[in-house]
Amino acid sequence: MTIIDGKQLASDIKEEIATEVKKIAEAGGKIPHLAAVLVGEDAASQAYVRNKVRSCEKVGFKSTMVTKDTSLTQSELMDIIDKLNKDDDIDGFIVQLPLPKHLDEVAVTLAIDPKKDVDGFHPMNFGRMAQGLPCYLPATPFGILQMLERYKIDVEGKECVVLGRSNIVGTPISILLSRKASPGNATVVLCHSRTQNLVDYTRRADILIVALGRPEMITADMVKKGVVIIDVGINRVDDETAKRGYRLKGDVKFDEVSKLASFITPVPGGVGPMTVTSLLMNTLKASRKEIYG
Amino acid sequence: MTIIDGKQLASDIKEEIATEVKKIAEAGGKIPHLAAVLVGEDAASQAYVRNKVRSCEKVGFKSTMVTKDTSLTQSELMDIIDKLNKDDDIDGFIVQLPLPKHLDEVAVTLAIDPKKDVDGFHPMNFGRMAQGLPCYLPATPFGILQMLERYKIDVEGKECVVLGRSNIVGTPISILLSRKASPGNATVVLCHSRTQNLVDYTRRADILIVALGRPEMITADMVKKGVVIIDVGINRVDDETAKRGYRLKGDVKFDEVSKLASFITPVPGGVGPMTVTSLLMNTLKASRKEIYG
Repeated sequence: MTIIDGKQLASDIKEEIATEVKKIAEAGGKIPHLAAVLVGEDAASQAYVRNKVRSCEKVGFKSTMVTKDTSLTQSELMDIIDKLNKDDDIDGFIVQLPLPKHLDEVAVTLAIDPKKDVDGFHPMNFGRMAQGLPCYLPATPFGILQMLERYKIDVEGKECVVLGRSNIVGTPISILLSRKASPGNATVVLCHSRTQNLVDYTRRADILIVALGRPEMITADMVKKGVVIIDVGINRVDDETAKRGYRLKGDVKFDEVSKLASFITPVPGGVGPMTVTSLLMNTLKASRKEIYG
Repeated sequence: MTIIDGKQLASDIKEEIATEVKKIAEAGGKIPHLAAVLVGEDAASQAYVRNKVRSCEKVGFKSTMVTKDTSLTQSELMDIIDKLNKDDDIDGFIVQLPLPKHLDEVAVTLAIDPKKDVDGFHPMNFGRMAQGLPCYLPATPFGILQMLERYKIDVEGKECVVLGRSNIVGTPISILLSRKASPGNATVVLCHSRTQNLVDYTRRADILIVALGRPEMITADMVKKGVVIIDVGINRVDDETAKRGYRLKGDVKFDEVSKLASFITPVPGGVGPMTVTSLLMNTLKASRKEIYG
């Protein structure tokens, strides 16, 4: 059994990106520049954005933070997006979700120029992904592809069961793994809350990708020997013995499932660290105009 | 066993559309207007486009045909598209595929204004579909949804196996049926040329959607009793006893599979007639500005 070390992998990829940025700087080229928009005081969102900006700095990118309090109106936010769309120095930008409730996330996503949509959430990028055209891939699916590729996990012709159909994980990874591409060419089954007899599907899986947000839901009796487990869940579970009063748990009961698995991602330290790496890779592509020319 | 009568269903829907158009005309509203661009002398394409235009006339739409021979250059074609994009009287238009080889189909699809893309092939519409946003659905998947809905075939929680991952049938119908929608909420398995042990999947299917383009490939031993069969294949098979020297065959061996099925679409007269209906429905939506406002 191999534990897929997302932390190490993310660190390797960041180093590769930093080397690229150095080369660009030495050649007098344009330094990639990512902007992030944060609205409101949500602690988790603040931490995520801070982490993204710090990662930018680490690899040598330029970064710009736009921070606004919850009093921001929809039209003010649209103005900010419009400015970022037009700013030639900014290669890509993200608007951290979730937004405060009075703001319209769909309208915001649609307002971002697809050429700068390094989160890959705009329908234009999503559609290009589904049609096999060049695009910015959303962070988590992109991270999962990287893991499969770098650990040389063959998915072609395999039965890949995806649990959860969200727009940011389940749906896009199910599309990506069934494409004629590498990694890809898997036979993909997309399961969700309305799936009946879930265990019939999980037990058949050669590769099981779990993105349900239900702590330790997948147990040893639900999988077959040799399964590859990609655990996307990051759940806070109360634990008085822990320093912060909680522990992070995946959607998979790691201790018992890992005994059966051929490969497995831990939580934390698995898929999580790969998401920022994906964002950096997309920003590098944006600055090189690889996708839209 | 019920044969799903696509011809009758399409005729019913056309009548409904014709009634709507009459109402619009009586109220002095704008009559829906579809344009079709045909390049080259491909006999099948000519027949398809003629059929689409004839259907427009039948329901009371305005229609415009733009016919060009194969000497048309890419930039001339782009000019035509640009004019159609800007023509306020035209609500939607299609460029019949396949195009002659010297023309770039992807560039053409991307050049069509998504607001007028009544074929639903533009990545913007495809992405909106995958994200559950309002959009123009591609014709064949839209037709299949109509069949399931009007024959009250419940797919929620059912195992739906899709054979074939094309951008115009397999991939979009697999996305649509797994969405939280009605018809939808199915557990979808997407199979294709790299799938191993295909029969293991087809035998489990509650709903089997076949879009492989291989005549009579699905036989009785490959399905279970009570299965719902949607046969998208339209294959010409040589037959000297037939008037034209060939017969149209589906991807499913109808005579034997129909004995096991609860519902089945015939070929011809099944999915085929529904595709033009979908185009008309999209054009009506376009003229009402239902999708993009």
